[in-house]
Amino acid sequence: MARLQLARRTERLKSSLVRDILAAAVQPGMISFAGGLPAADLMPALPLAATADAGLYQYGSSEGEPAFREAVAGWIGETGLKVSPDQVLALAGSQQGLDFAAKLLIDEGTPVLCEAPSYVAALQVFELFGAKILGVPLSADGPDLAAFEARLREDRPRAVYLIPCFQNPSGACYSMDARRAVAALLDRYDTLLIEDEPYRSVALDVDQPMTPICALLERAPWIYLGSFSKILWPGWRMGYLAAHPALMPHLVRLKQAADLHTQRPGQMAVAHWLGSEGRAADLDGLRSGYRLRRDAMQTALQRHFGDIADWTVPRGGLFFWLRLRGELEATRAVLDQALAQGVAFMPGEAFFAEPELGRQCLRLNYSRSTPEEMERGLALLARCLHEHALATV
Amino acid sequence: MARLQLARRTERLKSSLVRDILAAAVQPGMISFAGGLPAADLMPALPLAATADAGLYQYGSSEGEPAFREAVAGWIGETGLKVSPDQVLALAGSQQGLDFAAKLLIDEGTPVLCEAPSYVAALQVFELFGAKILGVPLSADGPDLAAFEARLREDRPRAVYLIPCFQNPSGACYSMDARRAVAALLDRYDTLLIEDEPYRSVALDVDQPMTPICALLERAPWIYLGSFSKILWPGWRMGYLAAHPALMPHLVRLKQAADLHTQRPGQMAVAHWLGSEGRAADLDGLRSGYRLRRDAMQTALQRHFGDIADWTVPRGGLFFWLRLRGELEATRAVLDQALAQGVAFMPGEAFFAEPELGRQCLRLNYSRSTPEEMERGLALLARCLHEHALATV
Repeated sequence: MARLQLARRTERLKSSLVRDILAAAVQPGMISFAGGLPAADLMPALPLAATADAGLYQYGSSEGEPAFREAVAGWIGETGLKVSPDQVLALAGSQQGLDFAAKLLIDEGTPVLCEAPSYVAALQVFELFGAKILGVPLSADGPDLAAFEARLREDRPRAVYLIPCFQNPSGACYSMDARRAVAALLDRYDTLLIEDEPYRSVALDVDQPMTPICALLERAPWIYLGSFSKILWPGWRMGYLAAHPALMPHLVRLKQAADLHTQRPGQMAVAHWLGSEGRAADLDGLRSGYRLRRDAMQTALQRHFGDIADWTVPRGGLFFWLRLRGELEATRAVLDQALAQGVAFMPGEAFFAEPELGRQCLRLNYSRSTPEEMERGLALLARCLHEHALATV
Repeated sequence: MARLQLARRTERLKSSLVRDILAAAVQPGMISFAGGLPAADLMPALPLAATADAGLYQYGSSEGEPAFREAVAGWIGETGLKVSPDQVLALAGSQQGLDFAAKLLIDEGTPVLCEAPSYVAALQVFELFGAKILGVPLSADGPDLAAFEARLREDRPRAVYLIPCFQNPSGACYSMDARRAVAALLDRYDTLLIEDEPYRSVALDVDQPMTPICALLERAPWIYLGSFSKILWPGWRMGYLAAHPALMPHLVRLKQAADLHTQRPGQMAVAHWLGSEGRAADLDGLRSGYRLRRDAMQTALQRHFGDIADWTVPRGGLFFWLRLRGELEATRAVLDQALAQGVAFMPGEAFFAEPELGRQCLRLNYSRSTPEEMERGLALLARCLHEHALATV
């Protein structure tokens, strides 16, 4: 073949560590804590009749179905963020909103501030468009506010990307004080917020309000991303964004250029579920199921990791985030040994723009394993970590 | 709100003329030849059972469902382009393939050679990424080969974008000689081909082979885009691409970054239809319906435009492309008058990177109007064109 001449950005389109790990983790017999798959078996049945209308065969509007936009505006409103249906854009999953945010905001070299650690696929799409990723350290109830302000003041990021509810990978959930403080800083420094909330509905023990930071802003522009993929049929790819009205015309044009519009039957299925009487019971059932699995994981973790790692029990979301003690590491090299012994996890270094910050961290998904697999897999994994530490002394 | 600081590319994210026209064209009582909507009423029924499996609730693979990739590889093979399922990527409509091609190939200032006229939304996405659009004149059976070679030699475009079957908007269908000549030139100048075939299946009178140009290449890399949206449920957004094996890893990563994967139920519905016994009869019925409408349009056009315009009866696709004689023009200003009188069309200037090339051209969709609407709408439109010409003498 002739020599390929590609766009400069493709040099940043690296093989994804996460993709490689997930490919390895689906080998037969593997106990995998690596992925982030929700529990499809706990999800409500799809309202098939809502998708079957031949009136949905034809092309639809780029903004989304009116019924979907109205139902989603109401759903968002329940969080405390009041939006009109005109501020809602139907997406093929919330990942698409990251693509649009990157197109809208990022030139080569544009600084973007993210939590450290952060969602891998967000870092990837921002980097693809040439962003310079800045990180702010994160604790269990919010970012380091002094570091956050210093970054805003000194580096003037064009946008800040945050996952304030049950953050992926750390499980952090911002306190209301942290939310108010972050909003005030964004307003003071006129910095656009991209707030990503895929896990909000997977709330297991919540004893405090979780008002979106977007709802607390007075001046700063914002894009709010939501997903149904943790509660309703991720294979149907249904997400949404809401945004400051000044951004909507741009976002709608980006949607049109990307794929014309989101498939209509999925929008109608979601709208039907949002308007259904069984909605609250469906969510209760889902959360009960997730809670049992999380608790089983906590029990197994205490047994096998209680003396070698520190973690906070996640109050929502799909992950435990562990920091190993002493000399123990959970790098890619350790993962290779673990995979060889039949257990997969996600090394912490995958979640940092500066990978060395994550050498002692690992993310463990709890939503797809049985208690027996947790017991056996975590015992194996703890042994691997010890063996690796001994071998490298 | 704070001052918005957006990426440079958003300056090229203009309000789309096409979008504005389509919004105007859906006013009640409007006779619209402006859009490009397929005839959903002629489409086969959706195989609902194929979409209903709870096994499709979970996330799927970025490449697409194995059953879809295999069925589509066979479907593409029927054109003469032999590909393996590994070369197929499921898309949320073929528009998404244009987004990926742009990401893969276009830096600011990258020259891309297109037919003049060409598909508006392709020009838009290429320009969004900063392409310098070059045009090659097109006649009914292919491009001006001397001009094509001159552009390849002198401007060294990084990619060439062509719609060789029933081109939008012109209806052009490349002869086999033109296909072979174009392939040889692309090979000689090592230039990547993006071949877009949304209309291949809307073939009404075809008396010659239509081998994809991608199948005739020996050296040049290629991306082949296909859509089901003209024959199967466009509201479900099902398209695909096939590509030279060297490009697939990049394209799969772009898919993952854009929306993780294409919704699974739509893939299964398409795979089911592709494997169904009724497929040929479904296509025959669809084509018969389209043929009747096209013939009705031709009859009405001969009556009202026979002495003021020239056109070739399209052998496929959804459009008539007219070139007006004498001083008659079909610009945006004429459109405004036509809309005021209740008839919509697409001005030719929308389809050219250099709009003045299209002042005397217009595109008319035939697939959504009744014979009575064609008769009344075309009479109105012809009168508008005359009135405008008189008023501007």
